[in-house]
Amino acid sequence: MKTQVVIVGAGPSGLLLGQLLHNAGISNIILERQTPDYVLSRIRAGILESSTVELLREAGAHQRMDAEGLVHDGVEFLVEGRRIPVPLKALSGGKSVMVYGQTEVTRDLMQARSEAGAPTFYNVSDVALHNLKSDKPYVTFSKDGEPCRIDCDYIAGCDGFHGVSRKAIPTDVLREYECVYPFGWLGLLADTPPIHHELIYAHHDRGFVLCSQRSLTRSRYYLQVPLTDKAEAWSDDRFWDELKRRLPQDLAGKLVTGPSLEKSIAPLRSFVVEPMQYGSLFLLGDAAHIVPPTGAKGLNLAASDVNYLYRILCGVYHQGRRDLLACYSQLALRRVWKGERFSWFMTRLLHDFQEQSGFDRRMQQAERDYFLGSQAGLTTIAENYVGLPFEAVR
Amino acid sequence: MKTQVVIVGAGPSGLLLGQLLHNAGISNIILERQTPDYVLSRIRAGILESSTVELLREAGAHQRMDAEGLVHDGVEFLVEGRRIPVPLKALSGGKSVMVYGQTEVTRDLMQARSEAGAPTFYNVSDVALHNLKSDKPYVTFSKDGEPCRIDCDYIAGCDGFHGVSRKAIPTDVLREYECVYPFGWLGLLADTPPIHHELIYAHHDRGFVLCSQRSLTRSRYYLQVPLTDKAEAWSDDRFWDELKRRLPQDLAGKLVTGPSLEKSIAPLRSFVVEPMQYGSLFLLGDAAHIVPPTGAKGLNLAASDVNYLYRILCGVYHQGRRDLLACYSQLALRRVWKGERFSWFMTRLLHDFQEQSGFDRRMQQAERDYFLGSQAGLTTIAENYVGLPFEAVR
Repeated sequence: MKTQVVIVGAGPSGLLLGQLLHNAGISNIILERQTPDYVLSRIRAGILESSTVELLREAGAHQRMDAEGLVHDGVEFLVEGRRIPVPLKALSGGKSVMVYGQTEVTRDLMQARSEAGAPTFYNVSDVALHNLKSDKPYVTFSKDGEPCRIDCDYIAGCDGFHGVSRKAIPTDVLREYECVYPFGWLGLLADTPPIHHELIYAHHDRGFVLCSQRSLTRSRYYLQVPLTDKAEAWSDDRFWDELKRRLPQDLAGKLVTGPSLEKSIAPLRSFVVEPMQYGSLFLLGDAAHIVPPTGAKGLNLAASDVNYLYRILCGVYHQGRRDLLACYSQLALRRVWKGERFSWFMTRLLHDFQEQSGFDRRMQQAERDYFLGSQAGLTTIAENYVGLPFEAVR
Repeated sequence: MKTQVVIVGAGPSGLLLGQLLHNAGISNIILERQTPDYVLSRIRAGILESSTVELLREAGAHQRMDAEGLVHDGVEFLVEGRRIPVPLKALSGGKSVMVYGQTEVTRDLMQARSEAGAPTFYNVSDVALHNLKSDKPYVTFSKDGEPCRIDCDYIAGCDGFHGVSRKAIPTDVLREYECVYPFGWLGLLADTPPIHHELIYAHHDRGFVLCSQRSLTRSRYYLQVPLTDKAEAWSDDRFWDELKRRLPQDLAGKLVTGPSLEKSIAPLRSFVVEPMQYGSLFLLGDAAHIVPPTGAKGLNLAASDVNYLYRILCGVYHQGRRDLLACYSQLALRRVWKGERFSWFMTRLLHDFQEQSGFDRRMQQAERDYFLGSQAGLTTIAENYVGLPFEAVR
């Protein structure tokens, strides 16, 4: 087989890149280790930056999002018992975020790809990348026990942290940066109306709380828990009780509880690998970087990488601008590091760090007091939350 | 002897408080362990927030400052080889800072006090504070070998970190917060024209640099150095050479060197004690808190404490509002912690921390990229640099 771009991984970043390239007349094949149902069963983030929304519209996979997604013009912080509304739209010069689950984004992109008739091979195994430093890279894999090979110009590694793409780069080329946080998030999904029309990020002595949502009838709540905790030890009742304890009484009184659809504990980490390209291989999303979920940057940073690689490949194929290829890593990383910074800032601002010194605890409180009490401070939060602008590719 | 307020320490905060109280008809006596000349020989900061300038005007000790001080409407950052002007006045809604040395402030306040005929006892020893938890506190000390006693209503501890005031509070009442930084500042004072009309805060791989000034003909430069360094090991030539290495060539070419008037290494630390009051005793300035010099908040936070205690004592003596006394520590600390946060933020932003992880180094760089590249980020720096507003005392 032959194509212009092989995309490894059919998660949202691989599918979004594939759709944009397909629409631009750049042929591509997606390879995915799992089944479509498995991909759709992963419960992930649900907040889209305005630039991610724009990119989904550009890909033509936006009809259901625009019909069913909830536009949020603000977000709320809850610190030291005070509720602090952050008017995102007013502070960011008119930008909002969209509440629309990653699962729905993936479903829409799968649908669009299927309608476009672009090829995706699910359930493949033994994916291996070859000749990355040459002009003639190729990818081999097994499908239904048969060995297959695709020759291509470029390979997009959208296969997540545990995928083969990053591992295909010699370790002496890569530099890894990592920070592991001493707690996890216990998440619960339930078909109950959200406690508030906006998301609530709360700091509490007992730990961080996020009151999120997927729709007007589906809530997503998170509690900071010790990494030693097991999800099995958290009955639904225990979860709801703990959530109420970390909210002020008037708000807790509005909480509608119900049986959990899903409940799991995720660790928090920051991770970045540099560079994000090696010869004909380009890394995107979780294959190159992980953020803690505070601030909802994971999917949005993946979309940021897609934006840059898509525009670079358009330049290459439509204008012969092969020189642009060398810019990918630098362009992508500049925005990645800003997203990493914001996620790290939000994580440090709102969680309980038991091991920190008294001085560090006071600094954490002073950061909350300052950033949530100053118009300029709130603006830094708002402009990062809705998403910093993309740089032009030229 | 008898007075309304005994002020321990004739540094700028003690003198400023004394002058304000005297003008308001509240009698006070200042006690100082050193001679006036010794007090004036201490080389300290030179950047006054607009609110400190206002307070000096309110005290009537502003004529020479207004004539000789340099109003700075901006400051410059130098990071990753780029010069980034920060228009303080434009970003802060019209506020500026004043370049006027702490030594000059002290001299003006001494002069004003002398003209007002308010009593200051220099060269006293064995100062001790008594009956702090009663309505009848008193202070004892020795002057020229004679034991003395002053009965008073209140005591203001303006005697610095090593003074007797904080030590007069039982240790089980106080909670201390501290952070020590793994480097020092080597400062050099010279009668040479400043390298630039604004201050320059520079980050360099070899360490932080501050190009400051006291006047149009007197420069003050600082270099980040290891704590193990001794000032004696730094000849003037070595200092100027190292300074040039940390500046871009065009700027280094403008540097006018000359013999040093003073050269010393100061460690950097953050320190706060809570609460800032105990019975009739109130702590102000360095007696209660130390900041690293990055951001020039030391003298300004002392003036902030003076502002609050002065307005509270006016309320007490002029309106019988003894209830205000209980608010001092909380009011003062809210602004102190914001100043501590800014000093800590500026210190972490601009210094080289050799022991930090690769991830932390990247976060430091991302903080510089973000805060110095965003209008909102620059505004947070500007509004803190010119000084956050005081809260009303009521």
